[in-house]
Amino acid sequence: MAGQTQLLRIDVVSGIPAYRQIVDGLRPLLVSGALRPGDPLPTVRQLALDLGVHFNTVAEAYRILAEEGWLDLKRRRGAVVLERPSPDRPDPSAVATLNRRLRELVAEMQAAGVSSDRIARELRARVEGLGK
Amino acid sequence: MAGQTQLLRIDVVSGIPAYRQIVDGLRPLLVSGALRPGDPLPTVRQLALDLGVHFNTVAEAYRILAEEGWLDLKRRRGAVVLERPSPDRPDPSAVATLNRRLRELVAEMQAAGVSSDRIARELRARVEGLGK
Repeated sequence: MAGQTQLLRIDVVSGIPAYRQIVDGLRPLLVSGALRPGDPLPTVRQLALDLGVHFNTVAEAYRILAEEGWLDLKRRRGAVVLERPSPDRPDPSAVATLNRRLRELVAEMQAAGVSSDRIARELRARVEGLGK
Repeated sequence: MAGQTQLLRIDVVSGIPAYRQIVDGLRPLLVSGALRPGDPLPTVRQLALDLGVHFNTVAEAYRILAEEGWLDLKRRRGAVVLERPSPDRPDPSAVATLNRRLRELVAEMQAAGVSSDRIARELRARVEGLGK
Protein backbone atom coordinates (compact mmCIF):
# COMPACT_ATOMS: atom_id res chain seq x y z
CA MET A 1 0.00 0.00 0.00
CA ALA A 2 0.93 3.61 -0.34
CA GLY A 3 1.96 3.75 3.34
CA GLN A 4 5.08 1.77 2.37
CA THR A 5 6.44 4.78 0.57
CA GLN A 6 6.80 6.47 3.94
CA LEU A 7 9.89 4.31 4.27
CA LEU A 8 11.56 6.30 1.49
CA ARG A 9 14.28 8.75 2.39
CA ILE A 10 16.21 11.14 0.20
CA ASP A 11 19.84 11.60 1.17
CA VAL A 12 20.73 15.02 -0.16
CA VAL A 13 24.48 14.68 0.48
CA SER A 14 24.93 11.29 -1.20
CA GLY A 15 25.70 12.67 -4.67
CA ILE A 16 23.09 10.27 -6.10
CA PRO A 17 20.30 12.13 -7.96
CA ALA A 18 17.02 12.20 -6.02
CA TYR A 19 15.03 10.54 -8.84
CA ARG A 20 17.50 7.64 -8.79
CA GLN A 21 17.17 7.35 -5.00
CA ILE A 22 13.37 7.15 -5.36
CA VAL A 23 13.68 4.44 -8.04
CA ASP A 24 16.21 2.47 -5.96
CA GLY A 25 14.09 2.88 -2.83
CA LEU A 26 10.83 1.77 -4.44
CA ARG A 27 12.25 -1.18 -6.38
CA PRO A 28 12.90 -3.38 -3.30
CA LEU A 29 9.27 -2.80 -2.20
CA LEU A 30 8.13 -3.92 -5.66
CA VAL A 31 10.49 -6.91 -5.88
CA SER A 32 9.63 -8.15 -2.37
CA GLY A 33 5.90 -7.76 -2.91
CA ALA A 34 5.53 -5.17 -0.16
CA LEU A 35 3.90 -3.20 -3.00
CA ARG A 36 1.63 -5.57 -4.91
CA PRO A 37 -0.06 -5.52 -8.31
CA GLY A 38 -3.07 -3.25 -8.11
CA ASP A 39 -1.69 -1.19 -5.23
CA PRO A 40 -1.88 2.53 -5.89
CA LEU A 41 1.20 4.66 -5.34
CA PRO A 42 0.88 8.19 -4.00
CA THR A 43 0.38 10.81 -6.69
CA VAL A 44 3.51 12.46 -7.95
CA ARG A 45 2.55 15.64 -6.17
CA GLN A 46 1.87 13.91 -2.84
CA LEU A 47 5.13 11.95 -2.84
CA ALA A 48 7.07 15.05 -3.88
CA LEU A 49 5.56 16.87 -0.91
CA ASP A 50 6.37 13.98 1.47
CA LEU A 51 9.97 13.76 0.30
CA GLY A 52 10.58 17.49 -0.10
CA VAL A 53 11.58 17.26 -3.75
CA HIS A 54 10.30 18.81 -6.97
CA PHE A 55 7.38 16.92 -8.48
CA ASN A 56 9.29 16.47 -11.74
CA THR A 57 11.78 14.43 -9.73
CA VAL A 58 9.07 11.99 -8.66
CA ALA A 59 7.54 11.98 -12.15
CA GLU A 60 10.94 10.97 -13.58
CA ALA A 61 11.26 8.16 -11.03
CA TYR A 62 7.78 6.85 -11.85
CA ARG A 63 8.57 7.08 -15.56
CA ILE A 64 11.70 4.90 -15.11
CA LEU A 65 9.79 2.31 -13.05
CA ALA A 66 7.03 2.30 -15.67
CA GLU A 67 9.67 1.64 -18.35
CA GLU A 68 10.95 -1.26 -16.25
CA GLY A 69 7.41 -2.64 -16.29
CA TRP A 70 6.55 -2.06 -12.62
CA LEU A 71 4.02 0.75 -12.87
CA ASP A 72 1.02 1.77 -14.90
CA LEU A 73 1.03 5.56 -15.02
CA LYS A 74 -2.38 7.15 -14.61
CA ARG A 75 -3.78 10.50 -15.51
CA ARG A 76 -3.24 13.24 -12.98
CA ARG A 77 0.14 11.67 -12.27
CA GLY A 78 -0.95 8.73 -10.18
CA ALA A 79 0.44 5.22 -10.63
CA VAL A 80 -0.67 1.65 -9.98
CA VAL A 81 1.60 -1.34 -9.46
CA LEU A 82 1.57 -3.83 -12.35
CA GLU A 83 1.99 -7.57 -12.44
CA ARG A 84 5.49 -7.84 -13.86
CA PRO A 85 6.93 -11.19 -14.99
CA SER A 86 10.61 -11.58 -14.21
CA PRO A 87 12.76 -11.47 -17.38
CA ASP A 88 13.55 -15.03 -18.56
CA ARG A 89 17.13 -14.29 -19.21
CA PRO A 90 19.04 -11.39 -17.69
CA ASP A 91 21.05 -9.09 -19.93
CA PRO A 92 24.70 -10.23 -19.42
CA SER A 93 25.96 -6.64 -19.40
CA ALA A 94 23.45 -5.83 -16.64
CA VAL A 95 24.80 -8.72 -14.60
CA ALA A 96 28.37 -7.48 -15.10
CA THR A 97 27.41 -3.94 -14.09
CA LEU A 98 25.61 -5.10 -10.98
CA ASN A 99 28.57 -7.28 -9.97
CA ARG A 100 30.89 -4.31 -10.37
CA ARG A 101 28.61 -2.24 -8.16
CA LEU A 102 28.56 -4.99 -5.55
CA ARG A 103 32.37 -4.90 -5.45
CA GLU A 104 32.29 -1.11 -5.21
CA LEU A 105 29.80 -1.22 -2.35
CA VAL A 106 31.91 -3.70 -0.39
CA ALA A 107 34.97 -1.49 -0.92
CA GLU A 108 32.99 1.50 0.30
CA MET A 109 31.99 -0.38 3.47
CA GLN A 110 35.61 -1.38 4.06
CA ALA A 111 36.75 2.19 3.51
CA ALA A 112 34.14 3.38 6.03
CA GLY A 113 35.76 1.11 8.61
CA VAL A 114 33.10 -1.61 8.67
CA SER A 115 34.88 -4.81 9.73
CA SER A 116 35.19 -7.76 7.35
CA ASP A 117 33.20 -9.87 9.82
CA ARG A 118 30.37 -7.37 9.82
CA ILE A 119 30.36 -7.04 6.03
CA ALA A 120 30.36 -10.84 5.68
CA ARG A 121 27.40 -11.00 8.09
CA GLU A 122 25.46 -8.45 6.03
CA LEU A 123 26.20 -10.28 2.78
CA ARG A 124 25.11 -13.59 4.32
CA ALA A 125 21.94 -11.97 5.64
CA ARG A 126 21.10 -10.95 2.07
CA VAL A 127 21.72 -14.53 0.90
CA GLU A 128 19.29 -15.69 3.59
CA GLY A 129 16.78 -13.07 2.49
CA LEU A 130 16.83 -14.52 -1.04
CA GLY A 131 15.45 -17.81 0.21
CA LYS A 132 12.24 -16.18 1.38
CA MET B 1 50.24 2.16 -10.60
CA ALA B 2 48.53 4.57 -12.90
CA GLY B 3 47.83 1.75 -15.36
CA GLN B 4 45.16 0.48 -12.98
CA THR B 5 42.98 3.44 -13.78
CA GLN B 6 42.62 2.06 -17.29
CA LEU B 7 40.12 -0.31 -15.69
CA LEU B 8 37.78 2.63 -15.04
CA ARG B 9 34.69 2.99 -17.18
CA ILE B 10 32.06 5.68 -17.21
CA ASP B 11 28.53 4.48 -17.86
CA VAL B 12 26.77 7.49 -19.30
CA VAL B 13 23.27 5.97 -19.14
CA SER B 14 23.41 4.85 -15.52
CA GLY B 15 22.04 8.08 -14.04
CA ILE B 16 24.94 8.09 -11.58
CA PRO B 17 27.04 11.26 -11.91
CA ALA B 18 30.40 10.68 -13.60
CA TYR B 19 32.42 12.07 -10.67
CA ARG B 20 30.66 9.55 -8.38
CA GLN B 21 31.44 6.72 -10.81
CA ILE B 22 35.12 7.70 -10.77
CA VAL B 23 35.16 7.77 -6.95
CA ASP B 24 33.37 4.42 -6.72
CA GLY B 25 35.62 2.92 -9.37
CA LEU B 26 38.88 4.08 -7.77
CA ARG B 27 37.97 3.21 -4.17
CA PRO B 28 38.13 -0.59 -4.66
CA LEU B 29 41.62 -0.18 -6.17
CA LEU B 30 42.64 1.82 -3.08
CA VAL B 31 40.99 -0.54 -0.56
CA SER B 32 42.44 -3.66 -2.18
CA GLY B 33 45.93 -2.20 -2.43
CA ALA B 34 45.97 -2.37 -6.22
CA LEU B 35 46.83 1.31 -5.84
CA ARG B 36 49.38 1.65 -3.02
CA PRO B 37 50.66 4.50 -0.87
CA GLY B 38 53.10 6.54 -2.92
CA ASP B 39 51.59 5.50 -6.25
CA PRO B 40 50.89 8.47 -8.51
CA LEU B 41 47.49 8.80 -10.12
CA PRO B 42 47.16 10.25 -13.62
CA THR B 43 46.79 14.00 -13.69
CA VAL B 44 43.24 15.28 -13.71
CA ARG B 45 43.66 16.31 -17.32
CA GLN B 46 45.03 12.94 -18.43
CA LEU B 47 42.30 10.91 -16.73
CA ALA B 48 39.63 13.26 -18.06
CA LEU B 49 41.00 12.68 -21.54
CA ASP B 50 41.10 8.89 -21.04
CA LEU B 51 37.53 8.77 -19.74
CA GLY B 52 36.06 11.37 -22.08
CA VAL B 53 34.79 13.62 -19.30
CA HIS B 54 35.35 17.24 -18.33
CA PHE B 55 38.48 17.73 -16.21
CA ASN B 56 36.37 19.34 -13.45
CA THR B 57 34.60 15.98 -13.13
CA VAL B 58 37.88 14.23 -12.38
CA ALA B 59 39.02 17.07 -10.10
CA GLU B 60 35.80 16.68 -8.07
CA ALA B 61 36.36 12.92 -7.77
CA TYR B 62 39.97 13.44 -6.60
CA ARG B 63 38.78 16.05 -4.12
CA ILE B 64 36.28 13.60 -2.58
CA LEU B 65 38.90 10.85 -2.33
CA ALA B 66 41.32 13.36 -0.77
CA GLU B 67 38.64 14.24 1.82
CA GLU B 68 38.26 10.54 2.58
CA GLY B 69 42.00 10.44 3.25
CA TRP B 70 43.04 8.40 0.22
CA LEU B 71 44.85 10.99 -1.86
CA ASP B 72 47.33 13.78 -1.47
CA LEU B 73 46.49 16.36 -4.12
CA LYS B 74 49.48 17.87 -5.84
CA ARG B 75 49.98 21.05 -7.76
CA ARG B 76 49.13 20.94 -11.42
CA ARG B 77 46.27 18.62 -10.47
CA GLY B 78 48.15 15.42 -9.92
CA ALA B 79 47.55 13.13 -6.95
CA VAL B 80 49.50 10.56 -4.93
CA VAL B 81 48.01 7.70 -2.92
CA LEU B 82 48.31 8.16 0.85
CA GLU B 83 48.74 5.65 3.67
CA ARG B 84 45.26 5.69 5.15
CA PRO B 85 44.50 3.98 8.46
CA SER B 86 41.08 2.31 8.57
CA PRO B 87 38.68 4.20 10.87
CA ASP B 88 38.59 2.54 14.33
CA ARG B 89 34.88 2.69 14.55
CA PRO B 90 32.55 3.10 11.60
CA ASP B 91 29.87 5.77 11.68
CA PRO B 92 26.62 3.86 12.51
CA SER B 93 24.61 5.93 10.02
CA ALA B 94 27.14 5.05 7.30
CA VAL B 95 26.65 1.37 8.11
CA ALA B 96 22.86 1.75 7.90
CA THR B 97 23.11 3.57 4.57
CA LEU B 98 25.42 0.95 3.11
CA ASN B 99 23.10 -1.85 4.25
CA ARG B 100 20.17 -0.13 2.61
CA ARG B 101 22.14 0.17 -0.62
CA LEU B 102 23.04 -3.52 -0.44
CA ARG B 103 19.32 -4.37 -0.21
CA GLU B 104 18.60 -2.02 -3.11
CA LEU B 105 21.31 -3.59 -5.24
CA VAL B 106 20.00 -7.11 -4.60
CA ALA B 107 16.48 -5.94 -5.53
CA GLU B 108 17.87 -4.42 -8.71
CA MET B 109 19.54 -7.69 -9.63
CA GLN B 110 16.30 -9.58 -8.98
CA ALA B 111 14.35 -7.08 -11.07
CA ALA B 112 16.87 -7.54 -13.90
CA GLY B 113 16.05 -11.25 -13.88
CA VAL B 114 19.24 -12.51 -12.24
CA SER B 115 18.34 -15.77 -10.48
CA SER B 116 18.44 -16.07 -6.70
CA ASP B 117 21.09 -18.78 -7.05
CA ARG B 118 23.28 -16.52 -9.13
CA ILE B 119 22.85 -13.58 -6.75
CA ALA B 120 23.65 -15.83 -3.79
CA ARG B 121 26.78 -17.02 -5.59
CA GLU B 122 27.90 -13.43 -6.21
CA LEU B 123 27.27 -12.44 -2.59
CA ARG B 124 29.21 -15.49 -1.34
CA ALA B 125 32.06 -14.67 -3.74
CA ARG B 126 32.30 -11.26 -2.09
CA VAL B 127 32.38 -12.91 1.36
CA GLU B 128 35.27 -15.08 0.08
CA GLY B 129 37.00 -12.00 -1.27
CA LEU B 130 36.96 -10.43 2.20
CA GLY B 131 39.15 -13.19 3.57
CA LYS B 132 42.01 -12.25 1.31
